[in-house]
Amino acid sequence: MVNQVQRVDGSWQTSRSDSSGASNSGESSKESSRCSTPLLDADRSDRLREKMRKRTESGDPWFSLEFFPPRTASGAVNLISRFDRMGSGGPLFIDITWHPAGDPGSNKETSSMMIASTAVNYCGLESVLHLTCSNQSQETITGYLTKAKQLGLKNIMALRGDPLGTDWEDEEEGFNYATDLVKHIRSEFDDYFDICVAGYPTGHPEAQSYAEDLQHLKEKVDAGADFIITQLFFRADTFLKFLRDCRAIGITVPILPGVFPIQGYQSLRQLVKLSKLEVPEEIMEVIEPIKDNDAAIRSYGIHQAVEMCRVLLDSGAVPGLHFYTLNREVATTEVLRQLGLWIEDPRRHLPWATSANPKRKVEDVRPIFWASRPKSYIYRTQDWDDFPNGRWGNSSSPAFGELNDYYLFYLKSKSSKDALLKMWGEELTSETSVFEVFTSYITAQVNRGGHKVMCLPWNDDALATETNLLKDELEKVNRRGVLTINSQPNINGKPSSDPIAGWGPAGGYVFQKAYLEFFTSSENVTALLKVLKKYEPRVNYHIVNVQGHNMTNAHDMQPNAVTWGIFPGREIVQPTVVDPVSFMYWKDEAFALWIEQWAKLYEDESPSRMIIKYIHDNYFLVNLVDNDFPLDSCLWQVLDDMFELLDAPPEVVGDGALAAVALGDGALAAVALGDGALAAVGLGDGALEPVGLGDGALEPVVGDGAPQPLSASQ
Amino acid sequence: MVNQVQRVDGSWQTSRSDSSGASNSGESSKESSRCSTPLLDADRSDRLREKMRKRTESGDPWFSLEFFPPRTASGAVNLISRFDRMGSGGPLFIDITWHPAGDPGSNKETSSMMIASTAVNYCGLESVLHLTCSNQSQETITGYLTKAKQLGLKNIMALRGDPLGTDWEDEEEGFNYATDLVKHIRSEFDDYFDICVAGYPTGHPEAQSYAEDLQHLKEKVDAGADFIITQLFFRADTFLKFLRDCRAIGITVPILPGVFPIQGYQSLRQLVKLSKLEVPEEIMEVIEPIKDNDAAIRSYGIHQAVEMCRVLLDSGAVPGLHFYTLNREVATTEVLRQLGLWIEDPRRHLPWATSANPKRKVEDVRPIFWASRPKSYIYRTQDWDDFPNGRWGNSSSPAFGELNDYYLFYLKSKSSKDALLKMWGEELTSETSVFEVFTSYITAQVNRGGHKVMCLPWNDDALATETNLLKDELEKVNRRGVLTINSQPNINGKPSSDPIAGWGPAGGYVFQKAYLEFFTSSENVTALLKVLKKYEPRVNYHIVNVQGHNMTNAHDMQPNAVTWGIFPGREIVQPTVVDPVSFMYWKDEAFALWIEQWAKLYEDESPSRMIIKYIHDNYFLVNLVDNDFPLDSCLWQVLDDMFELLDAPPEVVGDGALAAVALGDGALAAVALGDGALAAVGLGDGALEPVGLGDGALEPVVGDGAPQPLSASQ
Repeated sequence: MVNQVQRVDGSWQTSRSDSSGASNSGESSKESSRCSTPLLDADRSDRLREKMRKRTESGDPWFSLEFFPPRTASGAVNLISRFDRMGSGGPLFIDITWHPAGDPGSNKETSSMMIASTAVNYCGLESVLHLTCSNQSQETITGYLTKAKQLGLKNIMALRGDPLGTDWEDEEEGFNYATDLVKHIRSEFDDYFDICVAGYPTGHPEAQSYAEDLQHLKEKVDAGADFIITQLFFRADTFLKFLRDCRAIGITVPILPGVFPIQGYQSLRQLVKLSKLEVPEEIMEVIEPIKDNDAAIRSYGIHQAVEMCRVLLDSGAVPGLHFYTLNREVATTEVLRQLGLWIEDPRRHLPWATSANPKRKVEDVRPIFWASRPKSYIYRTQDWDDFPNGRWGNSSSPAFGELNDYYLFYLKSKSSKDALLKMWGEELTSETSVFEVFTSYITAQVNRGGHKVMCLPWNDDALATETNLLKDELEKVNRRGVLTINSQPNINGKPSSDPIAGWGPAGGYVFQKAYLEFFTSSENVTALLKVLKKYEPRVNYHIVNVQGHNMTNAHDMQPNAVTWGIFPGREIVQPTVVDPVSFMYWKDEAFALWIEQWAKLYEDESPSRMIIKYIHDNYFLVNLVDNDFPLDSCLWQVLDDMFELLDAPPEVVGDGALAAVALGDGALAAVALGDGALAAVGLGDGALEPVGLGDGALEPVVGDGAPQPLSASQ
Repeated sequence: MVNQVQRVDGSWQTSRSDSSGASNSGESSKESSRCSTPLLDADRSDRLREKMRKRTESGDPWFSLEFFPPRTASGAVNLISRFDRMGSGGPLFIDITWHPAGDPGSNKETSSMMIASTAVNYCGLESVLHLTCSNQSQETITGYLTKAKQLGLKNIMALRGDPLGTDWEDEEEGFNYATDLVKHIRSEFDDYFDICVAGYPTGHPEAQSYAEDLQHLKEKVDAGADFIITQLFFRADTFLKFLRDCRAIGITVPILPGVFPIQGYQSLRQLVKLSKLEVPEEIMEVIEPIKDNDAAIRSYGIHQAVEMCRVLLDSGAVPGLHFYTLNREVATTEVLRQLGLWIEDPRRHLPWATSANPKRKVEDVRPIFWASRPKSYIYRTQDWDDFPNGRWGNSSSPAFGELNDYYLFYLKSKSSKDALLKMWGEELTSETSVFEVFTSYITAQVNRGGHKVMCLPWNDDALATETNLLKDELEKVNRRGVLTINSQPNINGKPSSDPIAGWGPAGGYVFQKAYLEFFTSSENVTALLKVLKKYEPRVNYHIVNVQGHNMTNAHDMQPNAVTWGIFPGREIVQPTVVDPVSFMYWKDEAFALWIEQWAKLYEDESPSRMIIKYIHDNYFLVNLVDNDFPLDSCLWQVLDDMFELLDAPPEVVGDGALAAVALGDGALAAVALGDGALAAVGLGDGALEPVGLGDGALEPVVGDGAPQPLSASQ
């Protein structure tokens, strides 16, 4: 029989083959739990060597980028931002060098291990971790490799020592050659890792001859290496000859040329010294005369690299290019743009960036709450054994990492305290000052101090293109103290190729329910709850304050899918949900950001800090979903109705006056109405009732004869 | 904190509480695997007593129906059809009496146990199994209860002996009272079963007094019974007094009046004799004069029952009515219609009827192939430990039951051999005779013999309303030998309340991809494959013959969701998929039905049987999905293109002539074109290539200069 489907129980998930090699890992049993369907396209050819093979076969040249670990924590934060930016150009992989002097296998945020882990887990980049073996015991090396595997790293560049470094010495014991390391990896970890080794187009400086060095390279490949990246060189011919020589002695694996765009005179000199390379005369002749003109040298470097790369690619023998970036962005990006290899592909696999950690490969559902803070979500779920696949649920979310475990990177703002003060206000005078900060962020207009507000504690980056579609409505409500932190418009079946809303494979359709999440005062919430009764069951809401008082009209366990896609030949994909359980974890984080990122910018006891603290203590976090996705979103109408109710003349009104609002069982909350007036608010337990709220429990107290604007709708 | 979400790891699935009582069952571990989200609404209040409580609280009166097991297998088939029909009126439950003389706990298709199991598992009806304990050892009773639980039964009516029966005798040993049985059930099965007991409005015939009998009833309730169904009675006052008396002595559980619509003189006499009841004079006065007029008695019976039920319901003390149907349909249905309780709710929970077996409660995805044969699907998957929830996949489908294990009911037609011969032809003269049978079925027109074709081997019932929408197109293609057995139109977001396409909770939207499944000749398949190249990737296909030659352009593991729904506050529900793995199991069944149901109607070696056998051996089973659900289905255009290609003049043509068609590697298949001509077909292994087929491999051989109709599109 031809192509009869074969069932091999338990071995269904061919997508997991990359971890099945390590059969002694004891992890495979976990992976046999229900999560049947391979996610979209990437799964089955997920190994780096497979990706290379496919790209080579289809004649689709790739590029890769090399980075080294930074020396400081703030350097690490910057490098991670650079990963995000350079990742958008579509590198096949990045690699992180191993700094033996920098405690490279530690948990420090600057270690090679942690930088590579961040690239894989938080930035979703296929990553290769360098590893040098000289001076190391087998136990130490095995420990590094075990840790790398646990962190989700899948590729190792096996080196004797840093090819750019000098501080290692020959050893009688332990590993002396990269070949030993390759053998060790294969012997201890079977086929789990893809292994890269270094090639030297002009021969290794220590080799007795070019020919002998080629033989060493062949030994490394024969020991199990999957591909080769070369040391840098300056002439295309140097590489092409090396490539021919490798093929001639039977090296058949991919060989990637290492490209070094010259970026400055000093860095070139230093590099050449370390690597014992000679810079060709024709290059020195250009550079020497302009050696004090950095811009001119960089410009030449780009030109020279582009020319050389064109020759390499035109040879038909080079499937991809590897770039030594020196952790810089401009030169490499420009070379890639000129070569037409820098492709900011607007197509997204899912609406959010997927992690490159194989453990998270099946993950295809996330709560919408962390949409603007994906790294914190990944951090808080890093210990999960099982990730949502298809549906969001309990077995996939055993517990969120505690807020106080937060790792520096994922809670702190990228911006300095000074920059934040300029954006969010050197001095706050009232809640309205805060409203203005939100409004400036939404409108991308400068604030009173003349500074653009580029981020908020809940939004690390400028507004998403999609959110821009809602700008006018968002501005209007933020001005009135509906402080939005997350939103999406409804979408009723746009093509998956749509440049703004699209994601997933070609030929599909994507959908969204309108979503809005904001902080707002308890007074607004009182009016909002009244208004929301008119929108049952169309609108689902969750409303919670920092103490966890929780009001909702949604099922208490049931997530609401707010983004989904329908694709040819697939099951439905529903990558974003509003989930009542995780909302309570998000609530802790969302409220904490008021204090951690904003209030603490100001002196203790200062009015500015008191204002933020007041909001933290008294505002509610609200999320709204309009379930009727084929119709125009009604969420703006909900807020309009809320404002209208608030604007209706209450019993007592006036600047700075207090309006008494009956909350629950007769508890009275005094809420400031006027500009700048801060009143004590008495919200005891039970003041705001959860679901099942009796009619009228949250109605404003109005005197006899006073207008009761909504009574007709009850 | 109010309403803070509490996480209790592992106990998330409150919906499973009904089986957690039997903690010694060893089944619970299986249920903790990933399937997080409670399915739609029914889950959390799934116990019969809970359903009663909710309906009582909301003042929504229900009805229930009592049946007895039939004596013959064909009686069983008929009773199951009746379950389906009477189930559509919305009974809260049905109950099946226990026939001690009829081997009631056996696996015979007529046993009480199997009839109740069929009602639960195949008809999706909440069911109560009667169980009598007299003359039985504790071991036997425990065995029956264990088996009932394994079969998915959740409710037991605990009786000493059949209240209508006479053939049991007092016993010194074993159980002597229903109370003993109630205690035994609670002691052995904890809270797993909901237990019903019998009440006697005029006192049990053997009780010393009415008062003593009430005390016996109280003992049964105190022992753990959840509700009471009464013996039949003829006056509303009889029941209402009994109800008051029960309440007076502290019986608080629901008490359902047993209603017996008089359906004939003889059956009334017999019943009265068995149950030792007296028929009131005012009834006898009406009946005696018309005792030979069945229609008049039935009409009176309906009238009398309606009047009595109205009094009961109007009393406000009766939450629901229980009907003794005597396995008849008309009288009870009519009483219920007149009372306004018979509600054929067009709303469906899912597009297919969900099983009432708690084990299958999470099941919310099925392959579309069995859409017209759901009972066979349920039978073939009855041993699954785990059911698809959210996604269709491997762990949920360990293996389909073998075709040769098929249980009589689920493979055999409901119709007699005679009826089938009238519908499908006493004598077939050619393949065209077969085409005509399909066409008659589709059009609901009489066939040549003047008989309507009400079913086909793959379709037990008349065409679904939805399929009717496609009638014209279906007729056209069936006439030309595209023998359709399953189809659905595309739907782009109709309200979930849509009377034809709707399903699921209110306020949602349902969607479908167009689907078509048919048998057709290898000649047609050759043309179809050529045509389908133009429809990549819009159309997915699977094409297979009886030997398992399988051609597809779909992912070999990936199901394609073809029906899905979006609802307020929910994750996406995708209840129907085209799944490549289960298609191969379905294929065996679909081809077997040609032989088992159709060919075997005819004499061995008869031309009629040979024609069906030829189709079985040589036709292909094809399924097509149009992924572009927002557009009009292109599947009819695909078939039009196929016909056009077939109609283009080939090299040799003429009635009864043979056209040589090149298949794969030069293999030649001779395919009969003319009416009645049956030619040997040489389809060796490898003749038809699977996915990855080279261009031109399946093109017709045409001579030089002959027209090549599709060359322009290649």
